[in-house]
Amino acid sequence: AQKIDGTATAKSIRDNVASRIQELKNKHARFQPQLRPDSSAYVRMKAKAAEEVGIKYRHIALPAEATVDQVVETVKTLNNDDSVSGILVQLPLGDHVTAEGERTVTEAVQPEKDVDGFHAYNIGHLSSRASDPLFSPCTPTAVIRLLESTGQPISGANAVVLGRSDIVGSPVASMLRNRDATVTQCHSRTKNIEAIVKNSDIVVSAIGKAEFVKGSWLKPGAIVIDVGINYVPDSTKKSGQRLVGDVEYSSAAEVASYITPVPGGVGPMTVAMLMENTLKSAERLWEISRDRKIKPLPLTLLEKVPSDIEIAMAQTPKPITQLAQEIGLLPDELESYGKYKAKVELSVLDLLPPHLFGEGKSTTTIGLAQALGAELGRPAFACVRQPSQGPTFGIKGGAAGGGYSQVIPMDEFNLHVTGDIHAVTAANNLLAAALDARMFHEATQSDKALYSRLVPTKKGKREFAPLMFKRLHKLGIDKTNPNDLTPEEITKFARLDVDPETITWNRVLDTNDRFLRKITIGRNPTEQGHEREAGFDIAVASECMAVLALATSLEDMKNRLGAMVVATSKQGDAITADDIGVTGALTVLMKDAIKPNIMQTLQGTPVFVHAGPFANIAHGNSSILADRVALKLAGTEEGDSSDRVGYVLTEGGFGADMGMEKFCNIKCRVSGLRPDATVIVATTRALKMHGGGPDVTPGKALHETYTKEDLVTLKEGCKNLVKHITNSRKFGIKVIVAINQFATDSPAELALIRDEALAGGADAAVVSNHWAEGGKGARALAEAVIATCEGSSDFKFLYDLDLPIEQKISIISKEIYGADGIELSDQAQQQIATYTRQGYGNLPICMAKTQYSFSHDPKLKGVPSGFTIPIRSVRLSAGAGFLYPILGDMQTMPGLGTRPGFWEVGVDEAGRVVGLF
Amino acid sequence: AQKIDGTATAKSIRDNVASRIQELKNKHARFQPQLRPDSSAYVRMKAKAAEEVGIKYRHIALPAEATVDQVVETVKTLNNDDSVSGILVQLPLGDHVTAEGERTVTEAVQPEKDVDGFHAYNIGHLSSRASDPLFSPCTPTAVIRLLESTGQPISGANAVVLGRSDIVGSPVASMLRNRDATVTQCHSRTKNIEAIVKNSDIVVSAIGKAEFVKGSWLKPGAIVIDVGINYVPDSTKKSGQRLVGDVEYSSAAEVASYITPVPGGVGPMTVAMLMENTLKSAERLWEISRDRKIKPLPLTLLEKVPSDIEIAMAQTPKPITQLAQEIGLLPDELESYGKYKAKVELSVLDLLPPHLFGEGKSTTTIGLAQALGAELGRPAFACVRQPSQGPTFGIKGGAAGGGYSQVIPMDEFNLHVTGDIHAVTAANNLLAAALDARMFHEATQSDKALYSRLVPTKKGKREFAPLMFKRLHKLGIDKTNPNDLTPEEITKFARLDVDPETITWNRVLDTNDRFLRKITIGRNPTEQGHEREAGFDIAVASECMAVLALATSLEDMKNRLGAMVVATSKQGDAITADDIGVTGALTVLMKDAIKPNIMQTLQGTPVFVHAGPFANIAHGNSSILADRVALKLAGTEEGDSSDRVGYVLTEGGFGADMGMEKFCNIKCRVSGLRPDATVIVATTRALKMHGGGPDVTPGKALHETYTKEDLVTLKEGCKNLVKHITNSRKFGIKVIVAINQFATDSPAELALIRDEALAGGADAAVVSNHWAEGGKGARALAEAVIATCEGSSDFKFLYDLDLPIEQKISIISKEIYGADGIELSDQAQQQIATYTRQGYGNLPICMAKTQYSFSHDPKLKGVPSGFTIPIRSVRLSAGAGFLYPILGDMQTMPGLGTRPGFWEVGVDEAGRVVGLF
Repeated sequence: AQKIDGTATAKSIRDNVASRIQELKNKHARFQPQLRPDSSAYVRMKAKAAEEVGIKYRHIALPAEATVDQVVETVKTLNNDDSVSGILVQLPLGDHVTAEGERTVTEAVQPEKDVDGFHAYNIGHLSSRASDPLFSPCTPTAVIRLLESTGQPISGANAVVLGRSDIVGSPVASMLRNRDATVTQCHSRTKNIEAIVKNSDIVVSAIGKAEFVKGSWLKPGAIVIDVGINYVPDSTKKSGQRLVGDVEYSSAAEVASYITPVPGGVGPMTVAMLMENTLKSAERLWEISRDRKIKPLPLTLLEKVPSDIEIAMAQTPKPITQLAQEIGLLPDELESYGKYKAKVELSVLDLLPPHLFGEGKSTTTIGLAQALGAELGRPAFACVRQPSQGPTFGIKGGAAGGGYSQVIPMDEFNLHVTGDIHAVTAANNLLAAALDARMFHEATQSDKALYSRLVPTKKGKREFAPLMFKRLHKLGIDKTNPNDLTPEEITKFARLDVDPETITWNRVLDTNDRFLRKITIGRNPTEQGHEREAGFDIAVASECMAVLALATSLEDMKNRLGAMVVATSKQGDAITADDIGVTGALTVLMKDAIKPNIMQTLQGTPVFVHAGPFANIAHGNSSILADRVALKLAGTEEGDSSDRVGYVLTEGGFGADMGMEKFCNIKCRVSGLRPDATVIVATTRALKMHGGGPDVTPGKALHETYTKEDLVTLKEGCKNLVKHITNSRKFGIKVIVAINQFATDSPAELALIRDEALAGGADAAVVSNHWAEGGKGARALAEAVIATCEGSSDFKFLYDLDLPIEQKISIISKEIYGADGIELSDQAQQQIATYTRQGYGNLPICMAKTQYSFSHDPKLKGVPSGFTIPIRSVRLSAGAGFLYPILGDMQTMPGLGTRPGFWEVGVDEAGRVVGLF
Repeated sequence: AQKIDGTATAKSIRDNVASRIQELKNKHARFQPQLRPDSSAYVRMKAKAAEEVGIKYRHIALPAEATVDQVVETVKTLNNDDSVSGILVQLPLGDHVTAEGERTVTEAVQPEKDVDGFHAYNIGHLSSRASDPLFSPCTPTAVIRLLESTGQPISGANAVVLGRSDIVGSPVASMLRNRDATVTQCHSRTKNIEAIVKNSDIVVSAIGKAEFVKGSWLKPGAIVIDVGINYVPDSTKKSGQRLVGDVEYSSAAEVASYITPVPGGVGPMTVAMLMENTLKSAERLWEISRDRKIKPLPLTLLEKVPSDIEIAMAQTPKPITQLAQEIGLLPDELESYGKYKAKVELSVLDLLPPHLFGEGKSTTTIGLAQALGAELGRPAFACVRQPSQGPTFGIKGGAAGGGYSQVIPMDEFNLHVTGDIHAVTAANNLLAAALDARMFHEATQSDKALYSRLVPTKKGKREFAPLMFKRLHKLGIDKTNPNDLTPEEITKFARLDVDPETITWNRVLDTNDRFLRKITIGRNPTEQGHEREAGFDIAVASECMAVLALATSLEDMKNRLGAMVVATSKQGDAITADDIGVTGALTVLMKDAIKPNIMQTLQGTPVFVHAGPFANIAHGNSSILADRVALKLAGTEEGDSSDRVGYVLTEGGFGADMGMEKFCNIKCRVSGLRPDATVIVATTRALKMHGGGPDVTPGKALHETYTKEDLVTLKEGCKNLVKHITNSRKFGIKVIVAINQFATDSPAELALIRDEALAGGADAAVVSNHWAEGGKGARALAEAVIATCEGSSDFKFLYDLDLPIEQKISIISKEIYGADGIELSDQAQQQIATYTRQGYGNLPICMAKTQYSFSHDPKLKGVPSGFTIPIRSVRLSAGAGFLYPILGDMQTMPGLGTRPGFWEVGVDEAGRVVGLF
């Protein structure tokens, strides 16, 4: 007989595995198969083979007495670890584990990582004709491969399988059957095995009986695969024993046409098959992990577009866990908040080396996200701000988009989401309460009493709280024992000596409550007459919200919260949250808020909803962390094809003069991220207003300028658009103009805007109708975005941070607003001097300006010129990290009209929200 | 040959199934197997068989063009529907579905409901020697049963299986192999089938070839099972065809020993096996659904008990989804909020008829819940209040329990949980803002302007908002067209005419902010001088919170919110949230808050965390809905053994004079639930204080009365305990006294308390040490609770609602507090008159009293007597549904001390919370 050389075949298989792994590694630097066996025997052999082919191998040895639950826990951890390609559980688990226990462990292995092929799910597929298992078990596969290596037909052959074990006999029988052999399976209860063998063209033996099958049993020319591994005594060997198979090789070789030796037959093949299975698994998991296949939700468009809440409620969102899986998040990286929203763990940022991920492309709007994601099949993430609840119940108009381009569930989006604004409110107000309480206690106690309460003796010990060392350091006191302070030092330490006139820290509520704009607090007799004037802002105007948007990590957020300045002492020093001792508590209150929230569009594409500093006093953009997480998920890496390039569309508040300028000069400076392009949104109505059209008053009928073609007014208004384009160019950003189509727009009007925009320097100008048509309506826009983002851009800041404060304000006013210059009030000049002295001079500028005009005056439409910007005052957000000049009267707490939106809001019989926009 | 009578065997199997179902139904009224096939053929036959044995059968016919996704969706819905015992997918699904698509559908069926036995998981187990499938496929099982019915041995027999289909041939081969036959499987590629058949003791044919096997092929005495169903032309039949098997019956019957006929052989058996599988499934699912096996988390007790946050952080909670599964919640009934907390859908209440569920036993504390649930293995649910964030950062002492008896994650418990308090805050403050805004607009507009803004013309139509009809109805105006109102009616409708002096609605914050106790609002120039005095309470003191605790459904919550009275008009009418138009909006804000939150104890037993009205001005108990959901899950039904009886431990705020009295008189009246027993908690320290021990001041060393044995003081203090016991008896409730052990307690002291309590009428008095030992320390207490709750109790209310308000207050004061009587201030008398006139006279009473004394004076310890209760004023919570008399000065907004707890709070490098209690 011809000897079937298992060792050589195995080597060639292992070589193939090794070269395929090398090939994949060359293409994808991060590709790395890994095996995690829970095993005790055979470990070394497998480890060596793995190392040779380039598979990482880690043996997790559990204590001998490990319970089934403990082993299952370990297995589950490996299931969830996406760096692990295959898991082997080495049986038996010990005498204390029952057969049922072992099965529980075997079945805990995810079928997708069951490279042994023993999971019931894989065995089931192996046994079936209609389907293939994810993995075939190694030894049975080795048997088939060796049979195939002979070149003899299996189909139509009579095959006998000796043995019916789950790991060899029965799987081999199934595999032979699937290859069209006529299979007879024999075992200990079989009568007359010899006769059955005699009739067989193929003999596979796996019964563990030394030299059981004799040559005389065989049909002449049969092929013999010997799986047996039996030791028989042999005094000629050093070990005193010799390895033989189930078949008597010497006699069988005389009769068989092909036969495997033992050793050197099936044995070496098994490990090679394990390597092949592991590679197969690694390749499949790699493809899955890199697959960003988002399954769009179908849209049913109605011609007469219903109200936003009706559209939103008619769509059933997919479970957020499904969307998370589609965009490549692992279960451990997600914290569901209800069925349709979730927080994403910041660990996503650590898992993959950022430099390997290409940055996505940044721009805006939900409709565009739907077009890119659902229509064009690109990974596309929208990053939008969380809306305040105040306006939700005040004036109409949701922040979730509108028509067929919305974030859903829209009611949850407009209500609590995951409670981030509530956390901001709690943090802001704890600081406010702590400040007033501290002032009260300072005013009613002696230095000594104050100090002994601030640093009390507890169980005989007296210690500074950790945060107190920050203040001691600031005061230049380097003592660590509270009893060592001199009376002067005690006074300096214990008295913040807040100058009530300098308090800039307001309380906040997420309610439109105009009566809280200015209040007198402390009027209860318990406060002993320590009244003062104070006020409430809307919660999203809190500096804590700006900190949330600009924080780059939990640690960074903590530092920013601690640095927030709430007032100046009578000695002229800035008083911070650190001084008041609340930094840790504020961080704890906001520790979940820092995780970006994921929701979805009407078409089931991902949307990050995070932060939302109120535009007028803060920078008005979504958070840096949401952008970064989205970029991670959208990004490509070496070896990816260009149609895998993803897009992150991050929202900037209000016009390009406000949101974009702050996005570039403030947010990009902190994040280090660079936008590739900006999408400027234009409508005929807004442009006509800028072109001199009459004022639009809610509730009154529209002037016919806005409902009929009026090319003259529109053309005049386009100058405003061109100024926005020019402004964007100053940052080196490419510009796409999205012309949002209304039913009353004439073709000539739309063409005019496009022409003016292109003449004004836009890279593209495209009519978009996503409100009425969803992603389909923005398809052309999405294509323009993809085309425009090709090639590099040349981002730059507008001003240098080291310039004097006044000059930075002046640059923005002249370059972006088109002002002749600025005029600082006495107060503003004084404040600039103070901040410069206190070391805050090199912060960027966050202009608090109306969004209705390039100028400070909302009435100046078009492209105003010949005006000077009056700077009433300049304020400091030391934690957020910017200075904000106040231009004119800015309202930081909205009110409720006579007929607020809440009248319509309610729940129907089914508990669904109605009447919200 | 002997004919194997499939029809008769099948009938006997079906009869067995039917009688077993009847038996189970007799025992468990709700037991009902149900089959849900997605099928088109064979439906009638299966439906008939199911009906006969008592299995419900529903055929879901999907449109012919249904996609794979749609079928999978349907299947998933059935997987999650716990009334469905088995799911069949009738293949094929149509030409538009590929083989892969069909497999996707088949595998979408949960293996646990795969009564067809075709899921890869079940086939895998069927093929394996080591394990059994959940279900064996019906036809193969029928084959084996018929073979077995002959009484001939299968073991050792040579069996041939003709055919290798996944639904018959291969499973039959596996099953024969597992029964020790030597199996040869033949198919279309097999050479010389006849010879193989000739050698076989058992012949199973499933190839679908009419009369393929001839009698001459058979070994004499062979057993033949014919699975074939073939139609051959037969002009003698009306249908023109005749049914035959794979075997030529006439010739085979001559040679075989046993043979199945066609028809009447395997055919009828298949449906019978399906019935048997469905019953098996229903029984298993029934057991699982009724299993409340909670897997306790192990506790590692340290002798020197660490701080609460350290203990809490050292324990890894189980995922809340796992706990939910353990207590019998379905995935659809849970909304996870992060990994360790979740909201429970109120649909849980509808799913099962409540009268079938026994009510659990009600009492209190986490340690007891741990003892009952983790130590004694009983279904035990704790229902506790959500703590306010205010005190969390103010004074020390968490609300999550302490030591080794805590709710975890403890930091999340003490922070936002799922945002319910924030929702209450938002609702409360929207109403406040709306009230002030309305007053402002009324003050600054003419009746006509006001009306035209309140009821504007939109797109040519003018309509009342739905909520306005409530006000119109209240005013006796039955017009529906806004244009029909007379000028007088317009005035009445549009002007609420709030008397500012009567406003009782405060704003709230969940922050200890003493400077907001009394404030002047509206001081900004935009409010045009419309200032007024107002104030903030702590958020948990909001009536919205009391409504949340007492609501019995979403609809009920809406009605209660709408009924809340905020002020009186100048005409003396109550002004409600309905009048202001915010009811729907408040409901929307609180629509998620109404769902109880589930968390866990340190030992992994379930805890509902819900609501938490501030004890002094509200009733101080957890919510009715949490109690009801817990009772559903803890309850037993007919047929359950007595050791399945569950316990619901619901927390009442403060002493038995406050929390318990309100629990019984207010909460039980609304809920209709009755407590079985009350657990009164006693400590030597508290009793010694009541016995005349000196005051305890935080921060100062304890007087030695409290650290050394002092039986005299303690005995005097026990009178206070006895009064609490007597009070409980007045409600007909059984009393268990839990004596919380401290390290310094002497055995004599503990014995004294026990003796005094038993002498004073307690049913049991047990020392408990759960703080130091967790559930183990409360084991004896738990056993006492179980023993005491045996038998019935005789609950009754203390007073009748129809009594005059004054008399109800008097009954509580005399009976519970031991007062001589009450003394109403003039204001209180006036208020009582007003409320009685307005129709609020028959509400229960919620006394606002100190928890430090039975009397209104916190200094009167022990069992004071000879005092009269002064009632300063009486207030109305019309939405919550009670009147609350104010006894002395009640603080509704706490403050912050000089050294608040927030100084220690922070996150460590790993992002974990530190320093919280």
